[in-house]
Amino acid sequence: MSQQYDGPPDLPVDGASFAFSEKEREAVYRAIYQRRDIRNFRPDPISDRTLARIIHAAHRGPSVGFMQPWDFILVRDAERRRQVKDLFDRERTAAACFFDEPRRSAYLSLKLEGIEEAPVNLCVTCDPTRADVVLGRNSMPETDVYSTCCAVQNLWLAARSEGVGVGWVSILKLPQLRGILGIPPHIIPVAYLCLGYPVEFPGEPGLQTAGWRNRLPIDQLVHTDDWHNPVGDGRLSKYLEALDAEAGPAQ
Amino acid sequence: MSQQYDGPPDLPVDGASFAFSEKEREAVYRAIYQRRDIRNFRPDPISDRTLARIIHAAHRGPSVGFMQPWDFILVRDAERRRQVKDLFDRERTAAACFFDEPRRSAYLSLKLEGIEEAPVNLCVTCDPTRADVVLGRNSMPETDVYSTCCAVQNLWLAARSEGVGVGWVSILKLPQLRGILGIPPHIIPVAYLCLGYPVEFPGEPGLQTAGWRNRLPIDQLVHTDDWHNPVGDGRLSKYLEALDAEAGPAQ
Repeated sequence: MSQQYDGPPDLPVDGASFAFSEKEREAVYRAIYQRRDIRNFRPDPISDRTLARIIHAAHRGPSVGFMQPWDFILVRDAERRRQVKDLFDRERTAAACFFDEPRRSAYLSLKLEGIEEAPVNLCVTCDPTRADVVLGRNSMPETDVYSTCCAVQNLWLAARSEGVGVGWVSILKLPQLRGILGIPPHIIPVAYLCLGYPVEFPGEPGLQTAGWRNRLPIDQLVHTDDWHNPVGDGRLSKYLEALDAEAGPAQ
Repeated sequence: MSQQYDGPPDLPVDGASFAFSEKEREAVYRAIYQRRDIRNFRPDPISDRTLARIIHAAHRGPSVGFMQPWDFILVRDAERRRQVKDLFDRERTAAACFFDEPRRSAYLSLKLEGIEEAPVNLCVTCDPTRADVVLGRNSMPETDVYSTCCAVQNLWLAARSEGVGVGWVSILKLPQLRGILGIPPHIIPVAYLCLGYPVEFPGEPGLQTAGWRNRLPIDQLVHTDDWHNPVGDGRLSKYLEALDAEAGPAQ
């Protein structure tokens, strides 16, 4: 990912003291750019040591009011995973009803999970009741779930650096998933993840390769001061376009 | 963060081919462990080039059905930021009503934002209407917002590697925030962030330093196969405890 760097950083002197070295920054961007949603896994197990590092990284996620609302359910049991796979299959078939042809056939041809192939699954949950009154949650109660998602992304990037692939399965109904894993009704299963060493880390998102959707040009997504004011032709826009061009459509 | 590594990685031969080098992994974990919610900023501006890299990293976040539901509103205008700060002040006062003493005074003594000091603010939004039928969103419509949170965490970690601090302000009412930034009613402002070079990256979360809440022991948060089955005394638990001990209460 050295193409992310067009020369030494132009940080102000004060701020520079906290910046990582160029090599270190490159590694952080490499994890971000080469992270993929993985559906094809090798059977090799993940060691407890590696798994511990990945889960520990999630626990270092940010949380509103330092609430730490997450829990981690490791799913190794074959019977429970068969049940989750069955739940996925039903949901997938049901979801297909909402696509018209040729989109429906394309949807049904995609491999969207690795529940039984991956050596371990991990359900990351959110407990909205973890603390009585949470600082910062009065105006936006949903920030508990937001915190949990940030923890998941920490896990995903740590896993990438370890060579471990993560696939997020969202084609599942929560009440039934709670039933399979014994999760109380007030706990929110935020992410059901498949973890394992992947057959490959593809160069681009699978849905892009399959022609499902393309990466949006970043400069269409940036506004200044007001939603109705696009970023325009400023230097920021030029840098964003340059980064898009360097990364290419493949990433 | 070299204490995160207790020897060479014990990856299986096949999986190892995708793992980062030890130095690279160390950099990824460093970003994760040294990321902080920043409230004290220096006035130094962030260059457009650095800002572009950080926003571009967010755009490389995972998204359900490759939906990419996010937008980024850079808020530089002093008058709008004064209005956001005013909104924060009202919410903060209102939220204080829900704390009893001595918690209320403690709450009111905390610095919880850097809206006007930070050289730039950034509102990251989610557009639930970005695509007609989104693959994977039939069963869990809220995954659009989850995707946006993952993008925010990418941005937060990229910023840390650049020496840039990020502070998430959640003490804001969304309808009023929409009004200040001209955000349409159907767009969800997920994260209001203050960005700038920090006075410091503290060694532990500010709320921990203030005695507000402590880090939870990770081994209380891991379950196996069923919510009611704690991880127990396995090797995973030992590794998790060791990581907690190595990181110490400070992180």
